[in-house]
Amino acid sequence: MTEQDDIRQFIANQRPRVEAELERCLPPAEAEPARLQAAMRYAVCGGGKRLRPICVLLGAAAVRGPLDSALPAACAVELLHTYSLIHDDLPCMDDDDLRRGRPTVHRVYGEALAVLAGDALLTLAFEVLAAHLLPPVAARAGAVLARAAGSLGMVGGQALDLEAEGRRLSEPEILQLDRKKTAALFSASFQLGGISARADEGHIEVLGRVGLDLGTAFQIVDDLLDLRGTPEELGKAARKDRERGKATLPDLLGEEEAAARARALSEAACEVSRGLPAPDLIVALARLMLQRSR
Amino acid sequence: MTEQDDIRQFIANQRPRVEAELERCLPPAEAEPARLQAAMRYAVCGGGKRLRPICVLLGAAAVRGPLDSALPAACAVELLHTYSLIHDDLPCMDDDDLRRGRPTVHRVYGEALAVLAGDALLTLAFEVLAAHLLPPVAARAGAVLARAAGSLGMVGGQALDLEAEGRRLSEPEILQLDRKKTAALFSASFQLGGISARADEGHIEVLGRVGLDLGTAFQIVDDLLDLRGTPEELGKAARKDRERGKATLPDLLGEEEAAARARALSEAACEVSRGLPAPDLIVALARLMLQRSR
Repeated sequence: MTEQDDIRQFIANQRPRVEAELERCLPPAEAEPARLQAAMRYAVCGGGKRLRPICVLLGAAAVRGPLDSALPAACAVELLHTYSLIHDDLPCMDDDDLRRGRPTVHRVYGEALAVLAGDALLTLAFEVLAAHLLPPVAARAGAVLARAAGSLGMVGGQALDLEAEGRRLSEPEILQLDRKKTAALFSASFQLGGISARADEGHIEVLGRVGLDLGTAFQIVDDLLDLRGTPEELGKAARKDRERGKATLPDLLGEEEAAARARALSEAACEVSRGLPAPDLIVALARLMLQRSR
Repeated sequence: MTEQDDIRQFIANQRPRVEAELERCLPPAEAEPARLQAAMRYAVCGGGKRLRPICVLLGAAAVRGPLDSALPAACAVELLHTYSLIHDDLPCMDDDDLRRGRPTVHRVYGEALAVLAGDALLTLAFEVLAAHLLPPVAARAGAVLARAAGSLGMVGGQALDLEAEGRRLSEPEILQLDRKKTAALFSASFQLGGISARADEGHIEVLGRVGLDLGTAFQIVDDLLDLRGTPEELGKAARKDRERGKATLPDLLGEEEAAARARALSEAACEVSRGLPAPDLIVALARLMLQRSR
C-alpha cells in the first residue's frame, strides 16, 4: 500500500466512527425545543469532510496514543466548526444559501434559530470536552480549544475577514488572516489529539505547529477551489470571495504562486512532523490536502 | 445591621472585584482585531447588576468557601450572560435598541460584529473556566455551565420564547420556559460557587435547587418590571414583551397573582437553602430580589 492508500483508508475507517459519536454527543432528537434540535442535527449530520476531527485522531495516532481517547475531542472540534459555518453563512455575515450541497441552516430554519443553533453547538463542544474527557485532560483541552476559537483566533479571523472586504491586504496580512480564521482550529485539532492521548509537552507543541502550517495551506487551497470549482463540486457557492472583494492569496499572487505557497507550507508541516513518534499519516494527509477537489 | 444591610454590603464589596477581574479576563484592549475587542469591552464593561456573578460568590460563601476561589467562575458566568444579551438583542431575535441604558452592541458595531462579539464572549467564558480553575474543578464547572447554557437550558429557553410569541401558554409551560431561559443559568451560578469551593455533592445539589427557584422568581419580577417600569428605570425598552405577544406569567395570571408566585418561589428557595452551612446571605438576596426596581 502507498502512503496515500494508508491515509485514505484511515479516513474511510474513522469517519463513520466520528459520525456515530457525533450523533451520541447531540441531545436526543426528540428533546425539546424540537425545532432547535432539528436545526442542530441538520447542520451537524449533513455530511462534510470531517477533516478537523480526522486531524484530532491523527494527532493521537502520531504520538502512538489510543484513538478512542481522542474521539470526544474530535467531536468537540467538529461541533465547534459546524457552529462557525452556521454563523458565517448568516445574512449579516457572508449571506450564503448553500453549504455542504444543501440550503444553509438559516434558509431552512430562519435566522433566529440559526443564531441559536450555532450558539448551542458552540456550547455543546465545550460540554463534550468537559464531560467526556478525564478531568485534567478536559481542562487543558478546553483551554486550548477556546483560545484557538475565540477573539484572538477563529472569531478574530472572521472579524478581520469582514474588515478586509474591498481592501487590498499584503501577503503577511492575508497569511495572518488565514492563520486566525482557519489554521488556529487545525492547530488546536492536532494538539487536542496529543492532549487526549496524554502526549509529552514537546510533542503537543510540535502538533500545534504542524496544524498551523497545514491549516494555512488548507485555506489557500480552499481559496483556489473557490476560483476554479463549480457549486456542484464545492457544495457551496463558487467565486463568491472575489465578488465580495475578499482578500485571498490567489487574488494577490495569482493562482500558480498561491499554489506554490500552499505546497511550501505543506512541506514545512511534513518537516516539522518528523519530530513526532509516528508522523507518517500526517505526512500523507498533508499531501492529500493539496490534491483535494472540494 | 439587618439582613438586608448585610447583602447590600456584600454586593457593594464584591461587585468592584468582579468588575476588575472581568477586565483581566478580557484580551488586552489593544489586541487585534481592534473593533471586535472594542465591541466585547463595550458589552462587558457597560455596567449591569452583575447579579449572576454575585450568585456564584454567594454559592461559595454559603458553603463557607473562600470567595477568591469562585472569582473565575463568577466572571465566566457574567461573560456568558453578556453574550446571551448581545445575541438576544439582535434584529433577527428581539431587535432591541437599548440595553443597560445604552445602545445595543449591534446598533453601535453592526450586526456581524455583534454576532462575533457574542460568539467570542461565549468562548471566553469556557476559556476562563478551563484556564483559571484547578483542573478537576474546571472540568466539573465547564460541564455544569455548558449544560445550563445549551440547547436543553438557556439557548433552548430562548428558542421556546421565540416559538411562543403570539401563542397563549399555560402556567406550567411558562414556568418551564422561565426555568430554561433564565433559571438554568442562576442554578449553574450557585452551583459553580459551590464547585469552585469544592463543596460536598449534597450542598452543590442544594445550591442548584436554590438557583432554580430564585432564577424563576427573578424572571417573574423581570416580567412585572417590564409592565410597570419606564425605559429610564429599566435601562432597556419597556412593555416590549406585551407588544411582541410574549408569554409571561403576569400576562396570564395578572400582576398580583404573578407577584404572589414570585414570593412563593423566593420563600421556597430560602427554605431549601437551610440545608447549607451558611445560608443567611442567600436568604437575604432572595428577599432583596423581590424588591428590585430594575
